[in-house]
Parts: sequence; structure tokens; C-alpha cells
Amino acid sequence: MKKVLFATTALIALGSMAAADVRLSGYGRFGLDYNDLNSTDANDDNYNGVSDMTITSRLRLQVDMSAETDGGVGFNARVRMQAESRDNAPQSNGGVVVLRDATGAIITRPDGVGNDVPVVTRPNDNGFNGARFGVTYGGLIVNVGNIIGAVENAPGLYTTGTRSAGTGIDGMGFNSLVLKNVGWDAYDSDGQGVNGVEALYTVGGFTGHISYSEDNDDVASFDDVNGISVPGETRLGLMATYSFGDYYVTGAYQDSSDGIVIGGDDLNDLYFLAAGGDFGQFGAKIAYGESTLTKAWSLEGNMDIGAASNILVWVTDASSNKTIDIGGTPTDLGSDGTSWGINYQYDLGGGATFVAGYVDSENKLAAAHRQDQKQFQAGVYFSF
Amino acid sequence: MKKVLFATTALIALGSMAAADVRLSGYGRFGLDYNDLNSTDANDDNYNGVSDMTITSRLRLQVDMSAETDGGVGFNARVRMQAESRDNAPQSNGGVVVLRDATGAIITRPDGVGNDVPVVTRPNDNGFNGARFGVTYGGLIVNVGNIIGAVENAPGLYTTGTRSAGTGIDGMGFNSLVLKNVGWDAYDSDGQGVNGVEALYTVGGFTGHISYSEDNDDVASFDDVNGISVPGETRLGLMATYSFGDYYVTGAYQDSSDGIVIGGDDLNDLYFLAAGGDFGQFGAKIAYGESTLTKAWSLEGNMDIGAASNILVWVTDASSNKTIDIGGTPTDLGSDGTSWGINYQYDLGGGATFVAGYVDSENKLAAAHRQDQKQFQAGVYFSF
Amino acid sequence: MKKVLFATTALIALGSMAAADVRLSGYGRFGLDYNDLNSTDANDDNYNGVSDMTITSRLRLQVDMSAETDGGVGFNARVRMQAESRDNAPQSNGGVVVLRDATGAIITRPDGVGNDVPVVTRPNDNGFNGARFGVTYGGLIVNVGNIIGAVENAPGLYTTGTRSAGTGIDGMGFNSLVLKNVGWDAYDSDGQGVNGVEALYTVGGFTGHISYSEDNDDVASFDDVNGISVPGETRLGLMATYSFGDYYVTGAYQDSSDGIVIGGDDLNDLYFLAAGGDFGQFGAKIAYGESTLTKAWSLEGNMDIGAASNILVWVTDASSNKTIDIGGTPTDLGSDGTSWGINYQYDLGGGATFVAGYVDSENKLAAAHRQDQKQFQAGVYFSF
Repeated sequence: MKKVLFATTALIALGSMAAADVRLSGYGRFGLDYNDLNSTDANDDNYNGVSDMTITSRLRLQVDMSAETDGGVGFNARVRMQAESRDNAPQSNGGVVVLRDATGAIITRPDGVGNDVPVVTRPNDNGFNGARFGVTYGGLIVNVGNIIGAVENAPGLYTTGTRSAGTGIDGMGFNSLVLKNVGWDAYDSDGQGVNGVEALYTVGGFTGHISYSEDNDDVASFDDVNGISVPGETRLGLMATYSFGDYYVTGAYQDSSDGIVIGGDDLNDLYFLAAGGDFGQFGAKIAYGESTLTKAWSLEGNMDIGAASNILVWVTDASSNKTIDIGGTPTDLGSDGTSWGINYQYDLGGGATFVAGYVDSENKLAAAHRQDQKQFQAGVYFSF
Repeated sequence: MKKVLFATTALIALGSMAAADVRLSGYGRFGLDYNDLNSTDANDDNYNGVSDMTITSRLRLQVDMSAETDGGVGFNARVRMQAESRDNAPQSNGGVVVLRDATGAIITRPDGVGNDVPVVTRPNDNGFNGARFGVTYGGLIVNVGNIIGAVENAPGLYTTGTRSAGTGIDGMGFNSLVLKNVGWDAYDSDGQGVNGVEALYTVGGFTGHISYSEDNDDVASFDDVNGISVPGETRLGLMATYSFGDYYVTGAYQDSSDGIVIGGDDLNDLYFLAAGGDFGQFGAKIAYGESTLTKAWSLEGNMDIGAASNILVWVTDASSNKTIDIGGTPTDLGSDGTSWGINYQYDLGGGATFVAGYVDSENKLAAAHRQDQKQFQAGVYFSF
Repeated sequence: MKKVLFATTALIALGSMAAADVRLSGYGRFGLDYNDLNSTDANDDNYNGVSDMTITSRLRLQVDMSAETDGGVGFNARVRMQAESRDNAPQSNGGVVVLRDATGAIITRPDGVGNDVPVVTRPNDNGFNGARFGVTYGGLIVNVGNIIGAVENAPGLYTTGTRSAGTGIDGMGFNSLVLKNVGWDAYDSDGQGVNGVEALYTVGGFTGHISYSEDNDDVASFDDVNGISVPGETRLGLMATYSFGDYYVTGAYQDSSDGIVIGGDDLNDLYFLAAGGDFGQFGAKIAYGESTLTKAWSLEGNMDIGAASNILVWVTDASSNKTIDIGGTPTDLGSDGTSWGINYQYDLGGGATFVAGYVDSENKLAAAHRQDQKQFQAGVYFSF
């Protein structure tokens, strides 16, 4: 069956200055996930029919395509296919369903909300995400489509150097993030993305990044990136980073308009600041983020142990940024609590890594039995 | 990450007469699309919540698979994955949804049309289309599945030599077509196709093509190719072309039965005639098409400018082919008007092309504010 | 377009002990399918709007990814994309749809069964299935995700050496199986699979296989493999095989719990026994299977004819295993009847095979006009 073998280090490029290529790469990761907020005990407050111990897994297959003009301008495109399981269920993204009758006429739904509504679908197969298209010339990159996003691209936003960009096998909810209860434009690995436009410029140690996206007014073509958006929302993102030696400082900002408004402020306005660096065997990061509902800071440190191991610890503290009057009651809608996590990695060689992680996350504004969550994961990550 | 690089000109074939292979190829295209019938101004007749300036893009990744028997008979299959955005919305095709309850029983819908109805779904990911399977031997090709289609394969049906097979980045509605208000069997790049059968035979300058497809009676398994079909429809297509030197003449015909009937005629009956050729730096084409509702002719000319540029101009004039009595009122249901377009291409080298186009299309039978449409597009196309 | 050619026998591996790779392989198959239970005659008992002669086809594109640690532990993952047509309709699997209104709230459906219900969707495109992840070390294999399944892996369960693992082009319903009216865990080529875990160990001629899977209680994340399962069901599978020379004996068992119960017994409990072997030009197999509803035995023999042909004949006899009292009436719910089939294959070289098959299947417990079914198929299979 498997008669074609392409070793990942094989480079079969012809000498032409104007070459086009297709590259396949990706990773697999799988392991055990313990989550104390899952329960199959119908008498438990946390009962959701999901065992507290499940297998978490993801296969990512990425296709990178590129061409270069005679003048040295590069064009590229990237798509990914993901097959995932979390909480013992596939994780493919949903879509929009418009019901029509056999003649093609739109069916009026009994709830009167119209047919052209967003739905959550969990399809039985796994397709490719929306494409990102890019133009590169010297230090300048311009992308359209499923863009990276200026805020998403800020160094120090996610944990540094872990295989999941969070803790454990699948990130375990990315509780170390200082941006909470807010959505920002980001490359969507399992959906169509925001169809935005962005420019990145790098010169010396400086990188600047500006991104912009705009939803259509109609529900049917609206994208729902990072969960918190509405039709017609526009987002402008800015990010600047300066790196010197093994250190960096970064700042990012997003201005949202025509989106969800909470107590007079746009829900998805945010800013983010971080600084970090490597000190030989050690690394450290400090980050601060503020959105309309929540502000948070985070500290992170990691240490190499021997030739193949690394251990990373983080703590993130969030507090409400805005108290809103709801029916006469002052109410905090964001997050409030201190979360911490630890991640251990061991390099097995050949692109494989053993990963284990523990996260204890707190949100005093959640329902009583969900204010504290403990997760543990251990498993393997391999790239190809 | 991206460790595997396959240059598109690399040919790693072993000398065996009986070889099997998998080929990856495709293209990316993206640019700006101005369409004066889109509007975000709620007071505008054209209001649809979509900006008149959007990004249009497509990534096509094609997989060609083949094998050859010891006797020289070739077998092949082709599928494509497309990630597209037009009018700021993903363009994946829909499907059929059958609702069932938790026990698996079919849910009776309140509108009484049954569950097994076609729906428009806009999924959050992008899969592969239906496969075309082929057998080749000498000048004979037999295909089944997602077939090319005899009419679709007629030279001169689409514009000649443009990257979009129409005008601009994405074809801009393919208004140069002389077949209007009619559907014919064609390779479906983003759906399952018609599951037909076809034979092509080439000898000397002659190519003949016959195709046939048949829908099931049940709505659930019915395909909706080119928008105008009903369950149970059968289509027989014929095409013949003769090429001599740089010139060609072609004729195509489709007979539809058990489909939509308009005033006693099958909606999807059509014929098409075209002639064209290259005259050194210049090219030209004349085409005529007639379907039940509309007849149209088209003229097209193009010219190379310098070493890398080409400019193409077309004009298509349509008129109603059938007046139907609807409630005592003689009514024209097709298209009536003169449309024209211009396409400019500049070869950037390395498989990349700069493309710009303008289309002004007219249909006096459309709603008052949609009788005239102006579109402009400019962007880039690169193949890999 | 098709500039990249990878011959299937090309092996571009670097010498590293710790290599990672991506492999593409698969097959195409297509041919004519005659099924006397399809009918387009509205006066026929069997009327279903589908012609009794259709094209059956499948394209399978498989991606195998792997890496190996410095210590010789292998990691791998496998996904497949399938584009299929049977009975003139695409065969992609369905999924789960949860309807929400424009604000994201779940829409209460008029039938009161809730929104989170399984649906049959027939999408217009074809994605990849759920991934299987594996770890290998010496004779030990541990898989998670879309597992093989212990019962599914038993030698002799399917017909031996036919291209379809059944009869004809697409297996024609796999009527030779002795496990009837029962579902077991199996690699799902066109869906997400069971997200199970399994271990296989091979030493000398012995192979042992144990598999386990567990559904969540909630309908939305429940998988429906092999058609007969309910949310919350758990399945434990065991298989052992001993091979000596060209002969084998095998036994397999599945214990189901919290699934469907029929007259006090778990529907999906089963066991399977088989023995088979090659005797030079001849091969033979005997198999017995018993599930809660049905027990069956099967005999199979095949013979090479000349250098390139093989002919295989099987007969399977099923009888009811359990009579249940339904409203005072003793009722048999399983299968009862004798089915037989014949499969002919001719090796065309280059990975291509001509295949023809005939199946006459009987079930006296089905509706009167569906108790006897005759199918014939002929076509081509090619691997790449």
C-alpha cells in the first residue's frame, strides 16, 4: 500500500530561481487527559456524560504552496487539515445551514429566527481550513484570507516553547493567557478564518504587524473566530516587537467596532504587553493584558534539565475590569482568579517529545461548582 | 515544520512501463473585487450587507492518481480541494441533511415537505470534490463519476487563455458565456458532480465527446450541477471539434429529459457553435449559443503586448428565445442585454501572473436596480 | 498543471535512524452495479427512485505519517479521504447538527427531542476520517483514536484476497460475513471512529489483540460505528490468532455493556471462530459467528486459474439466535437464510485488476419483497 516515502529532510529542489513547490508537514499528538469538571456520575454537579479521564488527540497535516517570480517576489498559500478528539468527541468546527424545501424555497422555521442561522455541526469527516495567501518581498509580508492576526502574533502571548503553545498535550484551555473573555483575529486552524488583510514588516530586531478584518452584515457569511463576535464587526490589530539578543519586548492592541457592546465599551477592545528572554539554561516571561471585561498578568519561567528535558511553570492572575449594572445589580461578567500550571517535556529524538502537564485554574465568577478546575495530561507529540 | 520540499519540476519516475503515481498541483489566486451590486448601505436598493469592495480568493489543490497496465491501458482518478472566499464569505458547497431523533427515527418537519430535502450548508472546512475515474487507451478516453461533460469541454465556450477562464481573478460571473439560464453537465470542482459517464475520442485534428448522466428520483441523492436541475433529470451531451493548424471549429449539443419544462420545452436543451484561432500576435473567437430561454452571440479578441502582456476584450449579446404566457401575460424569463469585458494579464515569471479585469453586464429582464452591473478585479494568480 | 510526479516505487529516505515521513497511497475502483432491489418503476414493490443499474465507485487517498525516536520507538498516524458513489449517490458520512439562533441560543425543536440529535448529512465534499495514532516497539503495537478493533482484525472475518474484502467492486453488502445484526469496533474509513484504545502483540505465529471503547452519554458526541450503537455503550474486544505455515485458526469476542438490550441480552455481544489456509493453487476458509440475534456459518474456497486469474466462491447460512416476545407474539428480529456469491479477479499488471462478482442473498425475516436480493458487479480496481 504505502509505496511512496518522502523523508522529511529530503530536499528535491531544482536550481531555478523561479520555482514553485508543495510541502507537506504536520504533527500528531495524543495522550491521557484528566479533567475534574467532567463526570459520568449523574448525581455529580459536574455531570456532563463525559468521563473525567479521556484520550486527547490531534493530527495536523499542513500543506504549504509557494512560487517566486523572476523579480524575487514570493507568493504562498497555506492550508491545514486537523483530525481531533477531546472529551471523547471529534472537534471539527461547525458551519452555517440554510434549510430549503424540495423546490429550493427557504423553509420558514417555527422559531421565527429565520433559516440563515449559525449552527454547530460536528461533521463525520475533517476538511481543510480556510487558506492564507501571502506575498513576500524582502522584509515585507502581506497576507489575505485566513490571516495570522496582529495580536495573535505577539511573542509571549502563549507559553514559550511548549509543544502545545499551552500546557500539556492540547493546551488544556490556554489558561495562562492574559487576554480573557475577548476575541481577536487569529489564524483559524479548523475553520474558514476571518478573510482579513495584514502586513508585517521586519527590519533588524524590529517587527511591526497590522491586521484588519470586517464581517458581512448577514449572519450566513459571518465568521465566529475565538467565539466572541457578531455580524458586521470590524477589527483593527496592531503589534510591535523589538528583539535584542535573546530578549524581546512586545505590545499589541485591537480596536473593535460594530461588535458586542458591554456597558458602553466594545467587548473586543484589548491591549497586551510582554517582555521575555533566555538566560542560558533559564527562560522567563512577564505579560499583562486588558480587555473590556477582564485584566490579567502572568509570570512564566522555564529551565532546561540535562540534555533533553525542560520544565516550565506559569501563574496568571485575572480580575474583573468592569462592573456593569444589570437590572440594578452591579455585576462582573469577566474572570477573577489565580491559575497556575506546570509543563514537562522530554525530547525522545526523531521529532518525538514526551509531554506532561498540570493546570489548576480558578474563576470566582463562574458557577459555584465550576470555579476551580484541575487538569492533568501526559502523552506524546511527534512532528513529520 | 516545513521539512519536505517537492519542486514542481522534479520528476522522480522509475523506468517501469507499469507505474502508478500520485501528483499534487494547483493554484492560488487572490485580489480585490469591486462589485457595484454589493452594498452595506441599508438605504440602497442593492443592500445585502456585503461591502462593494472585497477580497476574492481561491486555493485549488489537485490530486491526480494513475496506474498503467502491462497492456498499456491507463487508469486515473482526479480530485480537488478548494478553499474559496467571494463577497467576504467562504464558498464551500452545500449538501443534504436528513434530521433524525435520538433513536434514529426520521423527524417529521413542521412544513410537511419531508426531511430528505436539499439544504445549503456553508461548512467551516473544505473537503475534496467527487472523483473522476478514467480509462485511457490510444486516442480513447472513458470517464465515469464527476465527468468533464461534452458541452463543458467545447473549445471557445469560456474565454480563451485567461487565468480565470473568464474575466479578472475569479471570472466575475462568466458573463461572456453564450449559454445562459441553462444547466449542463460539467466537472464539479467543489461538489460531488453528476456521477455520469462519457467517452472522448481524438484522431488527427478531430475530437468527439459524448456524455450522459441521470439523477435518481429521490431528492436526497439528487445532484444540483450548474444550479438548474431537478431529481430524475437525464442529460445527453455531444461535442465535436475540428482543429487545423491554429484554428478550430466546434459544435456542442445537450438534450435534457424529465427535467424542468418551460412552456412545453425542456429547460436544459441547448446547442453551441464556435470558431476561433490564433493569428500570430492576435487571437479571435466567435460563438453562438441557444437554450430554451435565451440565445446569445459573443465576439472575443486578444493581443499580446510585448513579451509578457496580453489584453483580451469580449462582447456578448443575449436576447430572449421564448415568450411564455404566465396568467395571460406574455413573459420573457431569460436574459436580454449586451455585456462586455476586458482582461489584462502580465506574466511575472515562476508561474505567477498579474491579472486585472473589468466587466459591464446587462440584463433588461432582471429587477430594475440589478439590470446593470459593473465589476472590477485586480490581483495575482500563481500555479504550483 | 501536473508538474509533480512521485512514482509509487520511489523511496527517498535518508539514512538517519530517527526519520519522519509522510506517505500517500490508495486505490481507485469503479464499475457497473446491478441490484434487483433498486427500481425506478413506481408500480414496483422495490421502487426507490434508483436505477437497478448504476455506477459504483470509490477513490481512497490514504496518508500515513510516522516518526521514530532514537530509542527505536515508532510513532505513526493514519487518515484517509474517500470519494464514493453507490446507488448513484455520494456516500460521505453524516454528522451531528445543533441548531442555534442568531444570538447563539439553542433552538427548541418542535418535536421535543432536543437539538443535539444525530442527523444524516450528505455533504457535497469529502473530508478525511478520524485519525488513528500508534506506538510501535518490537512486536507490540498500541493504538488510540480510530482503532482497528479486535474483532475487525480477525483473519477470515471478510472474504480472503478479494480486492473489495467482499464480492465484486464494492463488497455488495458483505453478505458472506457470519456476524450479522451486530455492531463492533472497526477502523472507520469515512467517519471519526470510536476514539478507542487497543494493543496488539505478535510473537512467532501468535497474534493477540485487545480493544476497548466507550461512548459519552451525550448524544452529540456519540459515535455510530457499524450502525448499531447507543450513547454510553462500552465495548471490549478480544482476538487471538495462530498461524502455522500457510494455515491459521482464529477466535474473536466482543462484550458490550450499557448498549441496546434485546430480551435481556446486550445486542452487541458476539463471538467469532475461523480457520483457513492455502493449499498451493487452492485456498479455503470455514467460519462461524454468533451474536445476540443471529448465528451463521460460512464456507469459502478459491482457486488460481493460470498466471493471473482467481475465482472465489462462498456460501453463508444464517439463522435466528433468539426469539423474543413482542406484545405476546414470539418474534425473530435477526437474519435467516442462505446466501452465496462468486468473485472473479484478473490481474492486469501495474497494480490494476479486473473484478467481477455475483451475490444472491436471502433473509426470510425481511419484508416480503426484499427477502431475496441478486447483485452483479464488474469493473476495475487500481492501486497507487
